[in-house]
Amino acid sequence: MPSVHFTSEETSNGVIARGFTVGEVPGMLWSPESGSGRAPLVLLGHGGGQDSRAPGMAGRAARLVGDGGFHVAAIDAPGHGGRPRTEDDEREIAALRRAMAAGEPVGPIVVTFNAGIARRAVPEWRATLDALQELPEIGAGGPVGYYGVSMGTAIGLPLTAAEPRITAAVLGLYSYDEALAEAAGRITVPVEFALQWDDELVPRESGLALFDALASKEKTLHANVGGHHEVPGFEADSAVRFLTRHLRG
Amino acid sequence: MPSVHFTSEETSNGVIARGFTVGEVPGMLWSPESGSGRAPLVLLGHGGGQDSRAPGMAGRAARLVGDGGFHVAAIDAPGHGGRPRTEDDEREIAALRRAMAAGEPVGPIVVTFNAGIARRAVPEWRATLDALQELPEIGAGGPVGYYGVSMGTAIGLPLTAAEPRITAAVLGLYSYDEALAEAAGRITVPVEFALQWDDELVPRESGLALFDALASKEKTLHANVGGHHEVPGFEADSAVRFLTRHLRG
Repeated sequence: MPSVHFTSEETSNGVIARGFTVGEVPGMLWSPESGSGRAPLVLLGHGGGQDSRAPGMAGRAARLVGDGGFHVAAIDAPGHGGRPRTEDDEREIAALRRAMAAGEPVGPIVVTFNAGIARRAVPEWRATLDALQELPEIGAGGPVGYYGVSMGTAIGLPLTAAEPRITAAVLGLYSYDEALAEAAGRITVPVEFALQWDDELVPRESGLALFDALASKEKTLHANVGGHHEVPGFEADSAVRFLTRHLRG
Repeated sequence: MPSVHFTSEETSNGVIARGFTVGEVPGMLWSPESGSGRAPLVLLGHGGGQDSRAPGMAGRAARLVGDGGFHVAAIDAPGHGGRPRTEDDEREIAALRRAMAAGEPVGPIVVTFNAGIARRAVPEWRATLDALQELPEIGAGGPVGYYGVSMGTAIGLPLTAAEPRITAAVLGLYSYDEALAEAAGRITVPVEFALQWDDELVPRESGLALFDALASKEKTLHANVGGHHEVPGFEADSAVRFLTRHLRG
């Protein structure tokens, strides 16, 4: 079983940010600077075209560490953050670029592309979680949450369905399809689900249908005005509160 | 112009609760015990069959006073809390009881009944607001919010549309109809809108359509699992935070 190999360390504003690899997969682990006691772990999923070192990821991690006292881990999805792309990846990215240039709908191409990424990413996340739980400051048996929207949900939704260690998840900004709906029907942990009312990539009815497919007894939809990239800042605060309630309650 | 006439006063847990009348309309005003400085005012609307003295109202008021430092006012809707019912009221209540006994859908009867109540309640709320703003601890020109779901939205939605002094509103648990949608299209202030995903009184599509009809640039839908009377407790906390952000921001 591969273990966590730290590659860098930086501290700012009370947050220790460490680069790491688990096997071939690079990632980031953000932790509180003060206090060496154990804390719950939040797995943070990035969006399409981004990676674990994107500024938005560091921003979300800082809130989770600062306001929730969590450890926060992210890994680069297959084909992202400098990781090699397969021929399939290249073909789908070319198809995506053609559709965008032609002004055609990209949703179906993105869903197919992301489903392929998710099939590879879910076992990588599970191996990363195994390795992170070997660290003394995290440990096995503690609470684990997941937070990722858009491509972070394409990966995080089947991950949450497959991984019993995840006990609460923030998901959203993603379209319904049959495979995802089947996975959603196996999720019973509390979920906070983001939807953008005027999302240009996710049709409203499709996002509502994916929320509906979740089997969780506690699930909350947060729908806001605006497009895919216009989620209001207060939703990040809401996600931290939701994870705090469930991982520290 | 009728003024506020206080009829009772009780203090508990740092909250002063005063009964009052404005003209013929009885109500309650909850205020922080400490600090005589001005504070924003939240108008709190009760549900069908309830009144300003219902325990749920005192509970919501205590959170708004304790966590938000607000003044909180409620008035009894026409035909509620011992206020006289008109012959029309009695006829509609009898129709409602017959439908319930027969297991028939009550939604359309409730919407018609509440629309009649709202026509009378909106001018009463506006006169109450005039009178409350004469009190030194409230004053004119300060921020005013509205918080009421179900029948509290049947009244609060047209009130918010008509009343420029209301600058933020928590609404929800109510069905679309054309008159309400027309009023919603005139609301531009921030709104947090509650919807119950399995509401036995409000069809899901109808609640979503009423949210959609709001013209506000900032509006957030909070949809939760469960029936009409099963809104999770954390939504009351969310409402207090929303009103604090907008009335104290």
